[in-house]
Amino acid sequence: MSAELSTALLVERHRGTLDTALDAVRTRAYWSPHPENPKAYADAEAGKSAFEALLGHRFPLDQPGTDEWTGGERSPYGIELGVDYPHPDPDVLLPAMRAAMPTWRDAGPEVRALVCLEILSRINARTHEFAHAVMHTSGQAFTMAFQAGGPHAQDRGLEAVTYAYAEQVRAPETAQWTKPQGKRDPISLRKSFTAVPRGIGLVIGCNTFPTWNGYPGLFASLATGNAVLVKPHPRAVLPLALTVSVAREVLAEAGFAPDLVSLAVDRPGEGLAKTLALRPEVRVIDYTGSTGFGDWLEANARQAQVFTEKAGVNTVVIDSTDNYRGMLSNLAFSLSLYSGQMCTTPQNLLIPRDGIDTDAGPKSYDEVVADLAAAVDGLLGDDTRANALLGALVNPEVKARLDAAPGIGEVALASRSVTHPDFPQAVVRTPVLVKLDGAKPDAEATFMSECFGPVSFAVAVDSTADAVELLRRTIREKGAMTVGGYTTSAEVERQLEEACWEECAQLSLNLTGGIYVNQTAAFSDFHGSGGNPAANAALCDAAFVASRFRIVEVRRPV
Amino acid sequence: MSAELSTALLVERHRGTLDTALDAVRTRAYWSPHPENPKAYADAEAGKSAFEALLGHRFPLDQPGTDEWTGGERSPYGIELGVDYPHPDPDVLLPAMRAAMPTWRDAGPEVRALVCLEILSRINARTHEFAHAVMHTSGQAFTMAFQAGGPHAQDRGLEAVTYAYAEQVRAPETAQWTKPQGKRDPISLRKSFTAVPRGIGLVIGCNTFPTWNGYPGLFASLATGNAVLVKPHPRAVLPLALTVSVAREVLAEAGFAPDLVSLAVDRPGEGLAKTLALRPEVRVIDYTGSTGFGDWLEANARQAQVFTEKAGVNTVVIDSTDNYRGMLSNLAFSLSLYSGQMCTTPQNLLIPRDGIDTDAGPKSYDEVVADLAAAVDGLLGDDTRANALLGALVNPEVKARLDAAPGIGEVALASRSVTHPDFPQAVVRTPVLVKLDGAKPDAEATFMSECFGPVSFAVAVDSTADAVELLRRTIREKGAMTVGGYTTSAEVERQLEEACWEECAQLSLNLTGGIYVNQTAAFSDFHGSGGNPAANAALCDAAFVASRFRIVEVRRPV
Repeated sequence: MSAELSTALLVERHRGTLDTALDAVRTRAYWSPHPENPKAYADAEAGKSAFEALLGHRFPLDQPGTDEWTGGERSPYGIELGVDYPHPDPDVLLPAMRAAMPTWRDAGPEVRALVCLEILSRINARTHEFAHAVMHTSGQAFTMAFQAGGPHAQDRGLEAVTYAYAEQVRAPETAQWTKPQGKRDPISLRKSFTAVPRGIGLVIGCNTFPTWNGYPGLFASLATGNAVLVKPHPRAVLPLALTVSVAREVLAEAGFAPDLVSLAVDRPGEGLAKTLALRPEVRVIDYTGSTGFGDWLEANARQAQVFTEKAGVNTVVIDSTDNYRGMLSNLAFSLSLYSGQMCTTPQNLLIPRDGIDTDAGPKSYDEVVADLAAAVDGLLGDDTRANALLGALVNPEVKARLDAAPGIGEVALASRSVTHPDFPQAVVRTPVLVKLDGAKPDAEATFMSECFGPVSFAVAVDSTADAVELLRRTIREKGAMTVGGYTTSAEVERQLEEACWEECAQLSLNLTGGIYVNQTAAFSDFHGSGGNPAANAALCDAAFVASRFRIVEVRRPV
Repeated sequence: MSAELSTALLVERHRGTLDTALDAVRTRAYWSPHPENPKAYADAEAGKSAFEALLGHRFPLDQPGTDEWTGGERSPYGIELGVDYPHPDPDVLLPAMRAAMPTWRDAGPEVRALVCLEILSRINARTHEFAHAVMHTSGQAFTMAFQAGGPHAQDRGLEAVTYAYAEQVRAPETAQWTKPQGKRDPISLRKSFTAVPRGIGLVIGCNTFPTWNGYPGLFASLATGNAVLVKPHPRAVLPLALTVSVAREVLAEAGFAPDLVSLAVDRPGEGLAKTLALRPEVRVIDYTGSTGFGDWLEANARQAQVFTEKAGVNTVVIDSTDNYRGMLSNLAFSLSLYSGQMCTTPQNLLIPRDGIDTDAGPKSYDEVVADLAAAVDGLLGDDTRANALLGALVNPEVKARLDAAPGIGEVALASRSVTHPDFPQAVVRTPVLVKLDGAKPDAEATFMSECFGPVSFAVAVDSTADAVELLRRTIREKGAMTVGGYTTSAEVERQLEEACWEECAQLSLNLTGGIYVNQTAAFSDFHGSGGNPAANAALCDAAFVASRFRIVEVRRPV
């Protein structure tokens, strides 16, 4: 290991953070080493300049097997990024990555964890630069790009490192095993236990949360000794290219081959992810995206452990509330944030057609829907605030679904266009809320499919019991990343809990303040359950890390 | 929970054992609560009588959805068992099993673990009865059936319960999460974390080790809250039927529905395992057996977590030794035990064609092979001892492979028939050792395929380096449950370690005493690595249990 970044230095810098993180995932109390307030970071102007300096150039990444340069990202805010990235020849790049692995394996779980923490810490120091990169690939508003793409993503990366470390040190490095033999001498063996990697981990990134959804798999695979090849979404390369670049810099300084973390960017229409996913060297895959490709990976990339987050249909059951205004404003925020382009945004609001009881008196189905529409209007009435919450639509498909929504049913809340003062080309739209009758089969065909983007359905149901039954069926058949519920009844709470326990989905009850059903906090909240069709893994638990490495035992007589 | 087996009583009886087991898997020092000496058990005669009383009758198992009775086991020792078992109507049995799950889930990880320990403890008390059942289905000699089918299998079951418990309690039951908000009031959420089962676990048993290979999956799934349906191999039903019967008895006494553990026995030729494996209720599958069916399960039972132990080719690299006699006698025992019908028996002994250095002087390839043959002859020269070690051939396919072996190459050690004094119909045969030239492609085609049973190959290789290369290729392409090595060279040791770390296989070096490459000890040794084609899981680690359950979180404002 080079003197530049010695083990002693890594231990001094990061061992304390690792220990605190180990404690945090045990207690699941609030904790984060990464401040979420942009003002806590000194690099605002420098970060913006650094981002701007990247535009229109080749992204500097010196990795083997680059056979051409490719790019073409265009910001949802209208800027051409004009950055070109290395396109790999897998027959050169993958062997180079494999060759780097034995030294990384020999470094052991602690050094690997500390190197990962150094990578995260350098990413954290450049959060402003990353925030602009996330904003101009995902379309998130700046504050969200900063928080979700910065500290919250870094938290999820650190959480994965924490689980990976904990899992690898559960077996001791060595053991002496002495078995009594009655009156004869006991038999003694000396045993060593080594965490060994599976191979190359492939991270297939998504358009909307390139870092937040990319970091858990990247850091879980790297911390367990694997090399990691990052294949970003073609429209969201830059944040992950920056990540790869920081990782390579730290690895080299710590005396490891930088090729342990490499980037693979497609030529337009190439479908490189499919080619890479079937390579025998690739033994772990992390994917966030469409159900179609996720299912394809699970069925075909049989040589690999495949972790997928796919489509789902998120439901909120509205039975009753003792804080009607709080419920409305909380839901309005959840529907509006990033224009509903989160895998955790509620899609179906199930409301009894006979209305609900509230602290403001009984409210009919129509009143609830109208009041929610008004709450969204109120939240987004001011264009500055609307721009700060909504961001831009990430791609034309989302806009097409939004434009088609009025044809689906009665519009309770129409979408309006918002002009962005700095980026007039950005497509910024408020969400649409459509009324549907849950008893009608054609309506059900609509709301039982994911309609990704700012489209939600106010579904009239016969009763809360029917809502719970529909919730169960939705989770079981379509999957769900989140479930919300509002009720003042202990019995209904219990029914919602039972439904989520049996169908395996994460439940938020009676959120009325500053926590939203679509947000989860690392070290405490699990993101997804891994037990319904929306995702086969949760962020983060032992199952997410334990099969990324294996323990090889060597035993010999003492 | 009924008074009969209260939580307090379970805690009193088993919490201490669970705690010691938790400690044992951490230190991996020697430990077992189950004595392996038959004399430590009081029930020798009663156990034999109990076994005999089962023969020729319907096996008493009162479970729903039994549409007929089926059986037909014949002991490899020649006895017709004549036991009939319930054949299930899955449309009745599976819903009954599912209905039993919520109560079992609500009991929580500790009660589930303690109930599992009570089941294991009652099985342990009936070890003699189980030993006869294992002997007369697997063909193992009595002592091995007693030890491997009794205490060692119970150890592996307890180990799985231990990992399952540890994994489920890593998240706390509840947490209070309080996030500071600068000058405003902090936000507080109360969170609960519940381990929920995936569904029904299907255990598909094997012929040779019905309990040893069946218990890890059975107890891992049960302890994580799943119901478990046990589908034994048609020739080895009785040991698992007894297991199911004990589990149902304990579950009922503890106040749970006995249907949580149920038995499914095929009609002859029915292929019930395929039908059950594709049922949507089945969400976990544990399988030990042929690569063909294991691959089919992995490809088709996509709704389930599939754990498979399949075929492999185990290698011993013989480079040099400082204890030639010890090496020969150790290998002779490994080749002979249970007539090589273990998934861990060495198949290919790689020996440099120019011979090896030993404490008894240099030995040519021919001398090593001849001396090993003589060691086997010496070990098995006495028929009583031979019968005690070999057991009976488990099925006609094994015998056919043995009979075909002399046609493969030069026979260094011929198989002979041994008469069993108590069971003259038993087919008892000593192992055959065939010489092959590793440089010849037709020989390679032979030794690179699993030849399950008492057939081993003494493969002449050009050098130890070639042996290590062939070892790597064998593990990578064919899989291996075990690897052995004999060398006095630190450099060769390192090469063997590196090969096993990179290709992911468990290595035993220089075994010359009373520990054999084909035996592993629960709580200390991993059985299989889960990282090569022989098995996709190891017994036992977190990866074996962590995905059998999921954590569902419910969060609400404080």
